[in-house]
Amino acid sequence: MSTHVRIVGAGLIGTSLGIALSHNGFRVSLDDPSPTAVRLARDLRAGEIAGDSVGAPDVVVVAAPPDVAARVVVDALDRWPDAVVTDVASVKESVLRVVLDSGADASRYVGSHPMAGRERSGAAAARGDLFDGRAWVVVPHEGSTDAAVRRVREVALAVGSAVRVMPAHEHDEAVAAVSHVPQLAASIVAACLRELPESAVGLAGQGLRDVTRIAASDPRLWTQILAGNAPAVRDVLRLVREQVDDVVSALDSLVDADGDGALGTLSRVLEAGNLGHARIPGKHGAAPAAYEVVSVVVPDEPGALARLLTDVGEAGINLEDLHLEHGLGQAVGVAEISVVPASVEPLRTELARLGWRVHD
Amino acid sequence: MSTHVRIVGAGLIGTSLGIALSHNGFRVSLDDPSPTAVRLARDLRAGEIAGDSVGAPDVVVVAAPPDVAARVVVDALDRWPDAVVTDVASVKESVLRVVLDSGADASRYVGSHPMAGRERSGAAAARGDLFDGRAWVVVPHEGSTDAAVRRVREVALAVGSAVRVMPAHEHDEAVAAVSHVPQLAASIVAACLRELPESAVGLAGQGLRDVTRIAASDPRLWTQILAGNAPAVRDVLRLVREQVDDVVSALDSLVDADGDGALGTLSRVLEAGNLGHARIPGKHGAAPAAYEVVSVVVPDEPGALARLLTDVGEAGINLEDLHLEHGLGQAVGVAEISVVPASVEPLRTELARLGWRVHD
Repeated sequence: MSTHVRIVGAGLIGTSLGIALSHNGFRVSLDDPSPTAVRLARDLRAGEIAGDSVGAPDVVVVAAPPDVAARVVVDALDRWPDAVVTDVASVKESVLRVVLDSGADASRYVGSHPMAGRERSGAAAARGDLFDGRAWVVVPHEGSTDAAVRRVREVALAVGSAVRVMPAHEHDEAVAAVSHVPQLAASIVAACLRELPESAVGLAGQGLRDVTRIAASDPRLWTQILAGNAPAVRDVLRLVREQVDDVVSALDSLVDADGDGALGTLSRVLEAGNLGHARIPGKHGAAPAAYEVVSVVVPDEPGALARLLTDVGEAGINLEDLHLEHGLGQAVGVAEISVVPASVEPLRTELARLGWRVHD
Repeated sequence: MSTHVRIVGAGLIGTSLGIALSHNGFRVSLDDPSPTAVRLARDLRAGEIAGDSVGAPDVVVVAAPPDVAARVVVDALDRWPDAVVTDVASVKESVLRVVLDSGADASRYVGSHPMAGRERSGAAAARGDLFDGRAWVVVPHEGSTDAAVRRVREVALAVGSAVRVMPAHEHDEAVAAVSHVPQLAASIVAACLRELPESAVGLAGQGLRDVTRIAASDPRLWTQILAGNAPAVRDVLRLVREQVDDVVSALDSLVDADGDGALGTLSRVLEAGNLGHARIPGKHGAAPAAYEVVSVVVPDEPGALARLLTDVGEAGINLEDLHLEHGLGQAVGVAEISVVPASVEPLRTELARLGWRVHD
């Protein structure tokens, strides 16, 4: 019999999960205080509406807002004494503490954090491939049973996620740096645009758009997330403040004093940014620095790129990544082929032999 | 006779400009201290290499690094007594001051700032549509002649930019908020990743990627830009610091004290971010080329991508751009194929028919 997953909360995450699990042969029942939300989720093929007849679930996934998630987990543990219960809240330590303090059977609780989302919320924004290829952090605690951990992994793997297992405090420290402080930075940079003259915001380019994209996120949701992870977010934000202070001092010195050492400070902050940026994983979680790029001029004609990639393949060289530089109105583009360093020279030689224009 | 534009500096901006102007019927000559750079620019069809025989230009565009731009402008004004001279440096007041103080004929100088760029530099990253739909700020001073302003507008319009005219100080204040402080924020957020455990950076998602994309920018270039605009950048960065201070205090209060008012502070910062973000113009004036993306799952095996591109070509559809997304720990990647909107449905249908997994 197929696994029965009860999803509590028919928002973006709950509905997307329902669609993906239903599609993969799970039986899904949907529960939400809003009858409209749950009906919309059902219409999107996220599962059936949970009623008296659906029976006991094997797994309960709590996809409720962060400030009520812990309470809903405890209720589910009490209501379904044989079910494994997980939640998808973005902060794990605070949920775990409530569950452990509740007296409920916490051995069946394992936290989750699928690293997937959108700036938009609600069932209407749901998509069945939301978790495909994303990390899903599984957060057991000391009392979690192996069977419970296996059940939660099964759900994550079924929707195409890559499972990462880590304890709650480690998770919370990680997301403070890779998610919560970036959110604050985006919001704060965007907030500085409020009073600008129209002519000034008209100069916005892609850099600003990217830095501030997530500044459009829901303030209620994010207030809960930040408050729920206050200690870890504060630690990272203090690092941010130190750097902002250093840069303000350097600029002060350039404006008001002799500028001594100021360029060094600016350069150090920017270089530190390069180094931090380089740590963000590329293909298959590997560091992008492990590859080198060979640039090849590609005529803008049908089949040219396919021919190039065929030549790369026939040279016996594994293409690790590819980026195409190619513009409107250009009769040529540049294909940037990432390969392991040992393949750079053989690839350059072989492509040049075949008549491709290879650039440094 | 077509307008002769001499471009000094065969980097990203100079080469992209050469490609776009050449394509639009201008005569372009290229000058750069690096013979490699200028040859690559020529190979990319950015223009001819400037030699003794090219003759006097009508317009000189100085696309040299910011710390030498002013000096190169003065040299060009002296060397070509009939040419209009502009530069593309990101900070305008400091260049203007040097030109005015030099004793050169400043009436033929009009500053420029095309609001286009990439986190990558050099001729290899050039593209002919770099300026298409972007703002190009034209920065006359009190002594600029109308004829000189018209010449610079002509260049900007020819490459598809939307011309904005404003004085140097207004330009510099605007870019502090929409470009220079966002760069610092991206670098500082990325810098906080340097010391994280591997498991933590492994949780990076699209939000972090977007916020920190420009943290990969060239530190030497950006040190010059920030130092060149120190007063205006400092003013905006002080606003950032006030907000960071407010959030750190709110988090302190949640961790160590009664949390009184803390949620209100967090919510206010996030809402201010929503409001600022909403002011960023949409497609008006800054539209990237109007392509749509079709996402196709590609097995991570030799030749798969070449096969896909062969299928695209045989479907008679012109691929405008291509980006590869690799899933975390997965044996598949996602190829994002950019095509004109009218080709989206035919391409999806044909690829699905051939057995490719096409995503929404």
